[in-house]
Amino acid sequence: MSPPATIVTPSLVHELDIVIPTIRNLDFLEQWRPFFQPYHLIIIQDGDPSVKIRVPDGYDYELHNRNDINRILGPKSSCISFKDGACRCFGFLVSKKKYIFTIDDDCFVAKDPSGHEINALAQHIHNLLTPATPFFFNTLYDPYREGADFVRGYPFSLREGVPTAMSHGLWLNIPDYDAPTQLVKPRERNTRSWPADRYVDAVMTIPKGTLFPMCAMNLAFDRELIGPAMYFGLMGDGHPIGRYDDMWAGWCAKVTCDHLGLGVKTGLPYISHSKASNPFVNLKKEYKGLFWQEDMIPFFQSVTLPKECTTAQECYIELSKLVKEKLGLIDPYFEKLSDAMVTWIDAWNELNPMTDGAAMIDQGSTI
Amino acid sequence: MSPPATIVTPSLVHELDIVIPTIRNLDFLEQWRPFFQPYHLIIIQDGDPSVKIRVPDGYDYELHNRNDINRILGPKSSCISFKDGACRCFGFLVSKKKYIFTIDDDCFVAKDPSGHEINALAQHIHNLLTPATPFFFNTLYDPYREGADFVRGYPFSLREGVPTAMSHGLWLNIPDYDAPTQLVKPRERNTRSWPADRYVDAVMTIPKGTLFPMCAMNLAFDRELIGPAMYFGLMGDGHPIGRYDDMWAGWCAKVTCDHLGLGVKTGLPYISHSKASNPFVNLKKEYKGLFWQEDMIPFFQSVTLPKECTTAQECYIELSKLVKEKLGLIDPYFEKLSDAMVTWIDAWNELNPMTDGAAMIDQGSTI
Repeated sequence: MSPPATIVTPSLVHELDIVIPTIRNLDFLEQWRPFFQPYHLIIIQDGDPSVKIRVPDGYDYELHNRNDINRILGPKSSCISFKDGACRCFGFLVSKKKYIFTIDDDCFVAKDPSGHEINALAQHIHNLLTPATPFFFNTLYDPYREGADFVRGYPFSLREGVPTAMSHGLWLNIPDYDAPTQLVKPRERNTRSWPADRYVDAVMTIPKGTLFPMCAMNLAFDRELIGPAMYFGLMGDGHPIGRYDDMWAGWCAKVTCDHLGLGVKTGLPYISHSKASNPFVNLKKEYKGLFWQEDMIPFFQSVTLPKECTTAQECYIELSKLVKEKLGLIDPYFEKLSDAMVTWIDAWNELNPMTDGAAMIDQGSTI
Repeated sequence: MSPPATIVTPSLVHELDIVIPTIRNLDFLEQWRPFFQPYHLIIIQDGDPSVKIRVPDGYDYELHNRNDINRILGPKSSCISFKDGACRCFGFLVSKKKYIFTIDDDCFVAKDPSGHEINALAQHIHNLLTPATPFFFNTLYDPYREGADFVRGYPFSLREGVPTAMSHGLWLNIPDYDAPTQLVKPRERNTRSWPADRYVDAVMTIPKGTLFPMCAMNLAFDRELIGPAMYFGLMGDGHPIGRYDDMWAGWCAKVTCDHLGLGVKTGLPYISHSKASNPFVNLKKEYKGLFWQEDMIPFFQSVTLPKECTTAQECYIELSKLVKEKLGLIDPYFEKLSDAMVTWIDAWNELNPMTDGAAMIDQGSTI
């Protein structure tokens, strides 16, 4: 678990898939070619399956539209959302690799303050391959970064860290704001003005017991460790809520990581987010989420999973029961969601028959 | 509690004292003159009281040596350490101001990446006068910074934040490493090499329930809110431990803040730390701390204070009992320390008779 001396690119070419949900031609991949081309892409086509999505030449990819999802999952396809970015989690399900990097098709290569193009994928890989430190805060940020270290007063028993399950990257240009914030801050929506372009040169572990708003625009994770908890819920077509898919997955995954002694990092790498979505459309999608969230957060903050749960699957099944029991009281939607969580795990187990020890992980230090 | 549109300097001139522990002439204040001169200094002279400390002309200051401490506190002076930087907390005790900024005499003005001198004090004041967000993590760091905001998925009910009790600044040049790390990383001890000079343009709240290693080289706090918990313990002369004074204060203050619903920020501002102390001398001082720490951290991680404690004083008295009960089992030193904690609060109450509501604080939101 010691950090590599230098970041070698491309690395993990045979162990990582790039998952992209989309409804349009993937011309954005042209800009990413120097960094992404060696990797296998899993493209999830949302919306009308008869639309032909163009993928730039030279990329190795598989593309799944709604017909494919229905064919592969049969009745279990009900757990995969339609007409919402939440469909991306189907890519996590069908991948056979250990790591996933997922990115939106309106995200481009960002530049660091010295003008160099940022290889976001290489930084995510570095984040995932170095340990995390969820049990104590290091004031100089990621102690495993080259040349960095633990500061005075950091307990030696915690310096080995724990395996990193997730790496959450950030955004320059258009920040990830909710619809009300988009509406009240139109300037930040449309321009490249400071501080949307504030580059913070840091990676850090989100402490154990602390929830965060996970955005899936620029996200990598260890599929073996946390994949089963990376379900993006029931959003979009036929459901009363949208734009909470990644939030839901983030909250579920974080409490699972906390329980299993796994780490979650946030910060570098940055991508450049090119276009703000329409705040009025977003408000309609987010409407239910904005107030359900006020109950969902206390729910996740108080979740305790039984000690017997030692895999992400087991944790997730337990979580689905708690969702039905506690959040079901708020709205019948959560009962449906709970059932879909179980269906998701059924689908996961069907497509990912457990390999030796793959899902059985060391719980790490939990002082 | 809304953030000021611009940072106006000098601010809080009549509400903030600068506390400096020292054994030498304070020539370092020449460099800080543009930023510090409007403020009152409280200088705590450690070591031989007959030594004459030179303070640059034009500064308004009071200086206390050991004779003064003994005279002012009488028998209670036993709680103030001698021949250790821990003596600085005497300055917190005798201040009559709402805010404290404390800095070491080997800390100089740092420059930001664009070469501008950083007014560390102004940034600390900004940190203290804007709210903190200990209950949920904002991935774009301090949402109250000019132009920044809460990201999508951040609960609206938590966006008002809570009062900020502490602002922990960082260091360029020589980082704050323990003796073993100094020994194994001599290069970083002596040069201005990257990454000791990595400037991270961020301020963030340390989440509730998460401990951190607090360094007192560059630290500000709200004395009314958290002053009574800012006791730097029994260190140096006559005690088996040194260089854990600020760590101890940090752990006590953080659990107190968590209990009272107050926030702790870390990150900006940077100062430039000029000289690394001798690692062999440090190792001798830290020796006991390095292994006691392995018990102290789990102790502080598991501390629960009774709901009845609604002031920092009450929390601290309760903490002193727990220290005696739990840490007293490790070494009789902690029984002495527990008694000193009580003496400290006695001294605090004597010198700071409670003013209306000053120590009665709003517990804030604690979903």
